[in-house]
Amino acid sequence: MRLRHKPWATDELKKRDHIVIQNPKEMAGKWKSYFGEYDKLHVEVGTGKGKFLTGMGTLHPDVLYVGVEKYQSVLYTAMERVEEAGLENVKLLSEDVADLADYFAPGEVDQFYINFTDPWPKSRHEKRRLTYKSFLSLYESLLVKEGEIHFKTDNQRLFEYSLHSFSLYGLILNNVSLNLHESDIEGNVMTEYEEKFSQKQMRIYRCEAKYRK
Amino acid sequence: MRLRHKPWATDELKKRDHIVIQNPKEMAGKWKSYFGEYDKLHVEVGTGKGKFLTGMGTLHPDVLYVGVEKYQSVLYTAMERVEEAGLENVKLLSEDVADLADYFAPGEVDQFYINFTDPWPKSRHEKRRLTYKSFLSLYESLLVKEGEIHFKTDNQRLFEYSLHSFSLYGLILNNVSLNLHESDIEGNVMTEYEEKFSQKQMRIYRCEAKYRK
Repeated sequence: MRLRHKPWATDELKKRDHIVIQNPKEMAGKWKSYFGEYDKLHVEVGTGKGKFLTGMGTLHPDVLYVGVEKYQSVLYTAMERVEEAGLENVKLLSEDVADLADYFAPGEVDQFYINFTDPWPKSRHEKRRLTYKSFLSLYESLLVKEGEIHFKTDNQRLFEYSLHSFSLYGLILNNVSLNLHESDIEGNVMTEYEEKFSQKQMRIYRCEAKYRK
Repeated sequence: MRLRHKPWATDELKKRDHIVIQNPKEMAGKWKSYFGEYDKLHVEVGTGKGKFLTGMGTLHPDVLYVGVEKYQSVLYTAMERVEEAGLENVKLLSEDVADLADYFAPGEVDQFYINFTDPWPKSRHEKRRLTYKSFLSLYESLLVKEGEIHFKTDNQRLFEYSLHSFSLYGLILNNVSLNLHESDIEGNVMTEYEEKFSQKQMRIYRCEAKYRK
């Protein structure tokens, strides 16, 4: 993602503290009850400009969505989107995914989304990929039993790697699609990237990875 | 595969009993020592016309290859290929894959190959797919510890299904390739189908599925 430096973003994000949560450590264990009475908590790691999350939030008002994004310049766009859509059930965190365990309690998250994440193609950067085993372990520690990761990417190599990483961890792969936009999976909400890539006839890869009991 | 009826094939196959093994039940547990001193036994399920197996046999003379194919009309072509190439280390079985446990002893097989197998696209035929759990269990019973299945197909839906089936069974996916002929995997021997499909610029999908300890 191309990042434009927006020095004023930090202050603006702080002002919208009903959307961009400023005290996430205090929220651990309370997310679903604090903002109302939500049935489910879904977390997107690497939310980017928030197109997916606002789309999902609009479609599923009974689910609380939290998007985590460390780049404030793109999070600013996500914040604007949530504000414009007037969505109560979409919250944002200006934080690093590696620190997730500080913001959520064990078993609190019902589902994770990983969409079009940085592929970190070099082998020596494997540990930075959000489907690397240390992240799979982190997600597991916060998920309900038999929780799921829903994963989409246009990057063939990252998808190949992730299938390896998921299976090595013992996850069960469901609804695998090697060409999402020509498959019969319904209710797909597109991300910013996805719209761009699918217009170019590029393949989108998707799967659900489920933890065992 | 288009099957031409060759009523004379049965007799011809029987005559070549140094290639098409006629008493496979008696061979269980003896394969690697009976025909010489082979280090490894690799079995291809659904060998078809034998292009892959003769290619592999030529490249790896220290491995004993056994191809299993129930359709005699195509097995006849495989037999001709083995004969023409003068390969001592490639044997054929005119049998059904479902009966494998009659022909091999537990732990005798070092690796299985499944290449361009019938996708059986209808849900009600799931059990016939060679990557269905009952087959994965059958292969496991005959494989060495941490044995592997090497799987290739041009059929996207079958590959998607097989990734699910492999992961549900707990297999580890290695060297996944979602576009084999544009990947950097070396030493690939093409099957009859594969040559045809890759000439048409169709994608070939491949992975290795490894059993856990």
